[in-house]
Amino acid sequence: DPKLKIFALNSNKPLAEKIAEAVGVKLGKTSVDRFSDGEIRINIEESIRGDQVYIIQSTSAPVNDNLMELLIMIDALRRASAKTINVVIPYYGYARQDRKARSREPITAKLVANMLETAGATRILALDLHAAQIQGFFDIPLDHLMGAPLLADYFLNHHLDEDAVVVSPDHGGVTRARKLAEFLKAPIAIIDKRRPRANVAEVMNIIGDVKGKRAIMIDDMIDTAGTITLGAQALMDAGATEVYASCTHPVLSGPAIERIEKSPIKKLIVTDSIALPAEKQIDKIVQVSVGQLMGQAIKFIHENKPVSPLFKNRFH
Amino acid sequence: DPKLKIFALNSNKPLAEKIAEAVGVKLGKTSVDRFSDGEIRINIEESIRGDQVYIIQSTSAPVNDNLMELLIMIDALRRASAKTINVVIPYYGYARQDRKARSREPITAKLVANMLETAGATRILALDLHAAQIQGFFDIPLDHLMGAPLLADYFLNHHLDEDAVVVSPDHGGVTRARKLAEFLKAPIAIIDKRRPRANVAEVMNIIGDVKGKRAIMIDDMIDTAGTITLGAQALMDAGATEVYASCTHPVLSGPAIERIEKSPIKKLIVTDSIALPAEKQIDKIVQVSVGQLMGQAIKFIHENKPVSPLFKNRFH
Ligand SMILES: Nc1ncnc2c1ncn2[C@@H]1O[C@H](COP(=O)(O)O)[C@@H](O)[C@H]1O
Ligand SMILES: Nc1ncnc2c1ncn2[C@@H]1O[C@H](COP(=O)(O)O)[C@@H](O)[C@H]1O
Repeated sequence: DPKLKIFALNSNKPLAEKIAEAVGVKLGKTSVDRFSDGEIRINIEESIRGDQVYIIQSTSAPVNDNLMELLIMIDALRRASAKTINVVIPYYGYARQDRKARSREPITAKLVANMLETAGATRILALDLHAAQIQGFFDIPLDHLMGAPLLADYFLNHHLDEDAVVVSPDHGGVTRARKLAEFLKAPIAIIDKRRPRANVAEVMNIIGDVKGKRAIMIDDMIDTAGTITLGAQALMDAGATEVYASCTHPVLSGPAIERIEKSPIKKLIVTDSIALPAEKQIDKIVQVSVGQLMGQAIKFIHENKPVSPLFKNRFH
Repeated sequence: DPKLKIFALNSNKPLAEKIAEAVGVKLGKTSVDRFSDGEIRINIEESIRGDQVYIIQSTSAPVNDNLMELLIMIDALRRASAKTINVVIPYYGYARQDRKARSREPITAKLVANMLETAGATRILALDLHAAQIQGFFDIPLDHLMGAPLLADYFLNHHLDEDAVVVSPDHGGVTRARKLAEFLKAPIAIIDKRRPRANVAEVMNIIGDVKGKRAIMIDDMIDTAGTITLGAQALMDAGATEVYASCTHPVLSGPAIERIEKSPIKKLIVTDSIALPAEKQIDKIVQVSVGQLMGQAIKFIHENKPVSPLFKNRFH
């Protein structure tokens, strides 16, 4: 039987440790560091010949360094005769560059998919891709996990589902909001951003009833936190009693932390798909781990069992 | 007739300007910057449909950012219907990772070649690749330029060829040293590093006659400058009257500048294949430009003329 081996790169070692623990193996021995000029140096310190190898790496910031670590590791594993190279990407960077919104734009999400395949990946395990279409950018098998059940658990365990309304911050996120709402047995509302005239500030119009209710916003990622914090204020103005926010991927770049601190958001529930540096670990932010979920998925893949029951049965 | 267009990315804009000037065109309009979370944003601001496009980018430090800029730009150009995408790489990063020196190492120089082709490059123009074998990593046409004639010109113009001996810092660099020596009509010498016993410092043994002569060392790149500065001291100890050093690629990472300052090296002659930040522009370092050479090469390629006479006739 080919052995199952898990290797962690540098983007999210705490999550990798949790995943390995859930699978019941130790992380493989490897060193991933830099030469004097900044080039990546990778040493795989144990034989992996004939093994089924899983690499854990989020392509979060610094995205180019993390992506290159991943590609170089795949190259090294392929040349060292790994039987399969399963790439576990809790956060898939460049996912928003998934189409030409204007002329002469790149489609970097596809470029990344091509590069992973060229390097030698044989399977992908992803979590809440920004667009489900990114699945089709790959010609190798891809399993797609959802963070919403874990976020739902947090709200249920803290009895925050009572008098709740789940709010999508835009029209694109309604499906995701509806999933969380089913789980919390709550109604949904949508924030409808409109610009009445050119060069006039956007108006946040709320579709649905939030008055006297606990509003729970959900998105796949929060980056600069502009939308979510303006939305939170609009919900309070519309009579919500309190506002919670949640997302799978806490990108939290630029002014995000300051905006969240200043906003009426009571708590922001996120996953650990992206490791948060100390300065982003503020009281308002709660991280729930996807380690158990991803570990289970790896076990199912290794045993050739379908992965979808891991989250499907939470909703259906 | 398809138009010739040149685009510069961020690694070496001064050189790109010189190349465009030598070709006699203006640099294409493009903006290459960052989103808030550090992901690369590229906008090509003029139509390139049906054009023959040249991109100038050295994959010097920060190597992963510069490489990703290049790959994303190639992707955007391909999707925007460029007729050909000619990638001009004055300095090819990861070139030293060109073979498995130990078990389970990556061959990153090949991975980079594969990625450039996957992204859509149709031709490569390179300068003094660390190993000529890297040419074979590509399945698309590659033209390979040499910096030695330009370095030779510096020594000739400053009458430093008189009483000179050209020194290779190791056995791998003898061919390069011999080329420079032919041009300067000078003899050659070789520094033979040996470790007499394990855990004993290396001994620098000089093969050839340097006593009473001006020693001119040449290498393809200088990174931490350990070899070249120790070699310079060994040459002085062996009776050289003065020591010059030269290389095509001034990587100059870590302790390089300090070591060069402290060494007996009188002047270090380098090219501008890698842009030097202000703190590396010290009096001892002279940069000669490859802009004219690379511009000529681009013109020849565009006119379907052979590129090799650009440097071959300097020596043969
Ligand atoms: N890292 C990024 N940060 C902010 N915006 C981005 C980023 N990457 C791509 N975009 C832009 O986001 C838009 C797509 O986002 P969305 O509508 O949420 O799918 C496109 O116009 C992209 O140009
Ligand atoms: N960026 C780098 N800095 C220093 N050494 C490197 C770098 N990249 C690769 N190497 C190592 O350099 C050796 C090859 O260098 P060379 O013998 O000069 O071709 C290999 O053992 C590589 O592992």
